[in-house]
Amino acid sequence: MSGTEQEQYDLVILGGGSGGYAAALRGSELGLSVALIEKDKLGGTCLHRGCIPTKTLLHAAEVADAAKEAGQFGIKATFDGVDMSGVNSFKDEVVNRNYKGLQGLVKARGVKLVEGTGKLVGTDTIEVTGANGTESYKGKNIILASGSYSKSLPGLEIGGRVITSEQALELDYVPERVAVLGGGVIGVEFASVWKSFGAEVSVIEALPHLVPNEDEAISKALERAFRKRKINFSVGVRFKGVEQDDNGVKVTLEDGKTIEADLLLVAVGRGPVTDGLGYEEAGVTLDRGFVITNDRLHTGVGNIYAVGDIVPGLQLAHRGFGQGIFVAEEIAGLSPAPIDESGIPRVTYSEPEITSVGLSEAQAKTKFGDDKVETIEYNLGGNGKSVILKTTGFVKLVREKDGPVVGVHLIGARVSEQAGEGQLIVNWEAYPEEVAQLIHAHPTQNEAMGEAHLALAGKPLHFHS
Amino acid sequence: MSGTEQEQYDLVILGGGSGGYAAALRGSELGLSVALIEKDKLGGTCLHRGCIPTKTLLHAAEVADAAKEAGQFGIKATFDGVDMSGVNSFKDEVVNRNYKGLQGLVKARGVKLVEGTGKLVGTDTIEVTGANGTESYKGKNIILASGSYSKSLPGLEIGGRVITSEQALELDYVPERVAVLGGGVIGVEFASVWKSFGAEVSVIEALPHLVPNEDEAISKALERAFRKRKINFSVGVRFKGVEQDDNGVKVTLEDGKTIEADLLLVAVGRGPVTDGLGYEEAGVTLDRGFVITNDRLHTGVGNIYAVGDIVPGLQLAHRGFGQGIFVAEEIAGLSPAPIDESGIPRVTYSEPEITSVGLSEAQAKTKFGDDKVETIEYNLGGNGKSVILKTTGFVKLVREKDGPVVGVHLIGARVSEQAGEGQLIVNWEAYPEEVAQLIHAHPTQNEAMGEAHLALAGKPLHFHS
Repeated sequence: MSGTEQEQYDLVILGGGSGGYAAALRGSELGLSVALIEKDKLGGTCLHRGCIPTKTLLHAAEVADAAKEAGQFGIKATFDGVDMSGVNSFKDEVVNRNYKGLQGLVKARGVKLVEGTGKLVGTDTIEVTGANGTESYKGKNIILASGSYSKSLPGLEIGGRVITSEQALELDYVPERVAVLGGGVIGVEFASVWKSFGAEVSVIEALPHLVPNEDEAISKALERAFRKRKINFSVGVRFKGVEQDDNGVKVTLEDGKTIEADLLLVAVGRGPVTDGLGYEEAGVTLDRGFVITNDRLHTGVGNIYAVGDIVPGLQLAHRGFGQGIFVAEEIAGLSPAPIDESGIPRVTYSEPEITSVGLSEAQAKTKFGDDKVETIEYNLGGNGKSVILKTTGFVKLVREKDGPVVGVHLIGARVSEQAGEGQLIVNWEAYPEEVAQLIHAHPTQNEAMGEAHLALAGKPLHFHS
Repeated sequence: MSGTEQEQYDLVILGGGSGGYAAALRGSELGLSVALIEKDKLGGTCLHRGCIPTKTLLHAAEVADAAKEAGQFGIKATFDGVDMSGVNSFKDEVVNRNYKGLQGLVKARGVKLVEGTGKLVGTDTIEVTGANGTESYKGKNIILASGSYSKSLPGLEIGGRVITSEQALELDYVPERVAVLGGGVIGVEFASVWKSFGAEVSVIEALPHLVPNEDEAISKALERAFRKRKINFSVGVRFKGVEQDDNGVKVTLEDGKTIEADLLLVAVGRGPVTDGLGYEEAGVTLDRGFVITNDRLHTGVGNIYAVGDIVPGLQLAHRGFGQGIFVAEEIAGLSPAPIDESGIPRVTYSEPEITSVGLSEAQAKTKFGDDKVETIEYNLGGNGKSVILKTTGFVKLVREKDGPVVGVHLIGARVSEQAGEGQLIVNWEAYPEEVAQLIHAHPTQNEAMGEAHLALAGKPLHFHS
């Protein structure tokens, strides 16, 4: 198809991040011709400025903690500090390896990767401005996958010592003191890393709890864990302003409290990248910048779909993957089942980690009624492997009374790995009795999932009430 | 019921290990009066001489490796050696904490714990010899749960520098060179620990592969990993003999090779503890020392049941838990569903770890026919979190052609925690398409489970073929 003035594809995708490239790979598997347009690097936020680099920092933080605490396990080791250039090399190595792998996949599957800045012009064409000037790509179907950016607050300017996660990932030193505005996932993950690296950390959250989207019991447990780790935090108080000079920042809160630090990380959420991309001109409905779609991710205009962080809901890479796959299958005529957003697992990779899927206790009570919900907390103190890891936390289960498990919530070191079992249980509407019937491996942390279901099914084993 | 000459209970259990105490706790929950007889410590092999203490050593080994390899992650740390007294204190602390917890549970649930050596006399009575002389306990139901011991080979005497896992757990030093007879779970776990602690290790396995009960692809991957770790091993060669003197042991193999070491660990399996306990006299059928039962764990004699390592099959603590719960429910009249042994997850906690549930490829081919089985291996090189952990390995899935997943096998650091999801999939006879439909959390190792199912369902995402 090259050589023509205007190239035509079955599928033209604007944005090569998680949602966009997943749609491209799946579409190409299904025999569609695909053009994938990316103005920066294939892989997008998650691979280059999000999930992957932050998790390398979090793993370096885990290694630092292991070295510091080695003596508790009988291992003689000395922690001599953090070599940020080494940490950054490790980070770059991981990102580059994944990046090369992804480039290889896109090439092997015959996806046309177009480097340049795309803009929707009309309902079936994307115009791309790149090194070769301006070209236009016509698609029988269009997928908008332009992703998100780190937001700030009105009047709070990013620059100098006031940074977002992008700059935080590029630091070549460990700050002595750092303030973090926002106690959601990104904020607490950076807080956790910097504390492990030796910084004094203060988190500011306007809502009443850290990780305010989680079940309140989880939020409270994270707050206890952070207190124990001597990570400072203020909750239920709003940010008022920040001043900076050569020596640092001075953050003022609405309660009059001030925090002095070397840096202020602004982690107040991510906004959709939809401005100036021609979406509204083409008739696509935007709501506060987000692209509105039906439950099949169709925008209601022509054959235009949207996936990923520009679609209201959970801003997670794996949701993007799922949506990308869904839309490619939809376009190929496979009529896939719509994605149930509440069945998507959520993870916070701080120390301790948090995983959840399905409804919180409060959400379940709203849905089913206060007296129609049962919950149980299984304390990791009863779990051999967690005791070995010297971690604390719990598994909290929420079930509809006499019905299936509708929420699974965990906090503790390494519990992100329990997301898969939790996900099957919630999505397959399993009864606790059905899970309790199965014997979990001893001694794993996974066993705590089994024990929690045993207890909720009324047959507790290693359960201290 | 105390004060009578012969105490009578609904349930009298001989052996306070995993199987026995699980039956006691569940029986008591169900309103049965329970006497639990234990000659040593409540908790049995798993808690005091098996799973729990070995996993503390394995975690200390992980911490040692983390300290040694910290530089790869940008963390400056120095590994200064292993303090075995510190490791042993950590081990004792973990065991004692779990032991206290268990004692508390047994007490809280009103189980009568009897300390002494029991023997079956007749079909409804156990005679106990303890500090108070001899007492007898009559049960409407009897559960035999006398556990297992570390076996040796004919003519191979344990003593001095020739030890079993019990002595290996009590060592107050790290041997410089150690030979391990047996490449099954226990053998490779100790080999892994000692290598991390700095010993030169040689494993001897008569069968053609290490961990010979696993899928052959897993065995080969463990062998590659051990080669990389410079753990020596000889497979497919039989042990001939060992000599020891003050300086060490000299092990001779049937191929003429000799191995010199400080110690020889004999890890050739565990035999049932059933000798001299009155089982045969009561009419219970033994086969090579194991107690034969039907699939409801009934011995065919009176109301006598058996659970745990004395029943032929997987010798795993969690199988014991499951069987104990099952028998208690059976006795209480709940008619529980029989346990499907092939659905019980198996874990080897070496570095790398191994988890499997269900059938190996070879077993599936035997069961369904060579052309009725499909498999896939998803390499952890495509999994972001595994790349961050710098581990290698894979997820191998085995499905019946156009049918459900019948086997899930993993190798890699920390993969034991994937046992739960694998278990639900195999036991609930899920189709790969059903798992692939669910979006796994990015970036976790658990995501590799999702990717493997996506690939097996014919819709690979991050999959390099």
